[in-house]
Amino acid sequence: MQLLKEMINSYGEVCEGNVLKVGNFFNQQIDITLMSEMGKEFKKRFDNCGVTKVLTIEASGIAFACMTAQYFNVPMVFAKKSASLNSDDDAYTADITSFTRGRKYTITLPKAYLGPEDTVLIVDDFLATGSALFGLIDIVNASGAKIAGIGIGIEKAFQDGGKKVRAMGIRVESLAKIKSMTPGVGVEFCD
Amino acid sequence: MQLLKEMINSYGEVCEGNVLKVGNFFNQQIDITLMSEMGKEFKKRFDNCGVTKVLTIEASGIAFACMTAQYFNVPMVFAKKSASLNSDDDAYTADITSFTRGRKYTITLPKAYLGPEDTVLIVDDFLATGSALFGLIDIVNASGAKIAGIGIGIEKAFQDGGKKVRAMGIRVESLAKIKSMTPGVGVEFCD
Repeated sequence: MQLLKEMINSYGEVCEGNVLKVGNFFNQQIDITLMSEMGKEFKKRFDNCGVTKVLTIEASGIAFACMTAQYFNVPMVFAKKSASLNSDDDAYTADITSFTRGRKYTITLPKAYLGPEDTVLIVDDFLATGSALFGLIDIVNASGAKIAGIGIGIEKAFQDGGKKVRAMGIRVESLAKIKSMTPGVGVEFCD
Repeated sequence: MQLLKEMINSYGEVCEGNVLKVGNFFNQQIDITLMSEMGKEFKKRFDNCGVTKVLTIEASGIAFACMTAQYFNVPMVFAKKSASLNSDDDAYTADITSFTRGRKYTITLPKAYLGPEDTVLIVDDFLATGSALFGLIDIVNASGAKIAGIGIGIEKAFQDGGKKVRAMGIRVESLAKIKSMTPGVGVEFCD
């Protein structure tokens, strides 16, 4: 997606340790026009797949998932990273490791929000090692729902998450696929 | 706002300890039509206030803030509850206590995302003791930005957060104001 790639080139910052900072337009300060265009693009790519829910994980996937869900006119649901007083005990859980935070989490989703009648579009802002995605896939599988596919904002194609998920036979659409990135130089895209 | 009140009556669950569970349509599984209508309503109420940014706090405020920001056609920014590898050291910080989680947090927002040139609409899903809001107000004040007002989804008017914030001279618009709630009975609204 041209607009996303242009914004990564203009506003992104490549840091040491394969970190791409895009907080200024993509995952903390959010450019609403970009998010809206991304939502439209996913609607186009996953149209006629029978999507009944858009699923993501807190926190930075939420904006993106919301803007996508509105074009499908279906509910958005997100898995939480820790239990709170308001949580339901009757929940699906999965363990994940965050690449950026270097920490392990248990993610949870109340069972009432996903079931065999659902066809799920999973979305997330980044795909690198795929840990968060594997957790979400586990949750969808446990619920008996179908996976229509996975919509990613930025895929770090030089890490192996995308390859592993596609090897499971799941369709993955990434709007910007990064082949390599070099601090002080920038980002090279796959296409 | 009639639609929100109807959905609280139909799908909300009042639990012991002044907890209102609305995760099934409002803050974990998100009804996109409702969020969109809420966004439109805030646009109507804060139109001509010169809003340049919509500010919230992760995680459950994000969906709501995004859907609001798109009607103002301005960026959405959210304060994070903990620092990650991708965080900027040059950030505004404030300490808050979460009512539902019973925990203290430091919230942070990179200084680059808010400045004296901004007029901010702060939004959040709930207003109870106001702790999260006071943190966001501190951050906006530290940045030199102006506060256009505060847009709340559900205000627990029997707690004192709303009163305290209004006493600071800040305009607060809540789409559903709860006068009282009783487990097994339900919710009584202020109007």
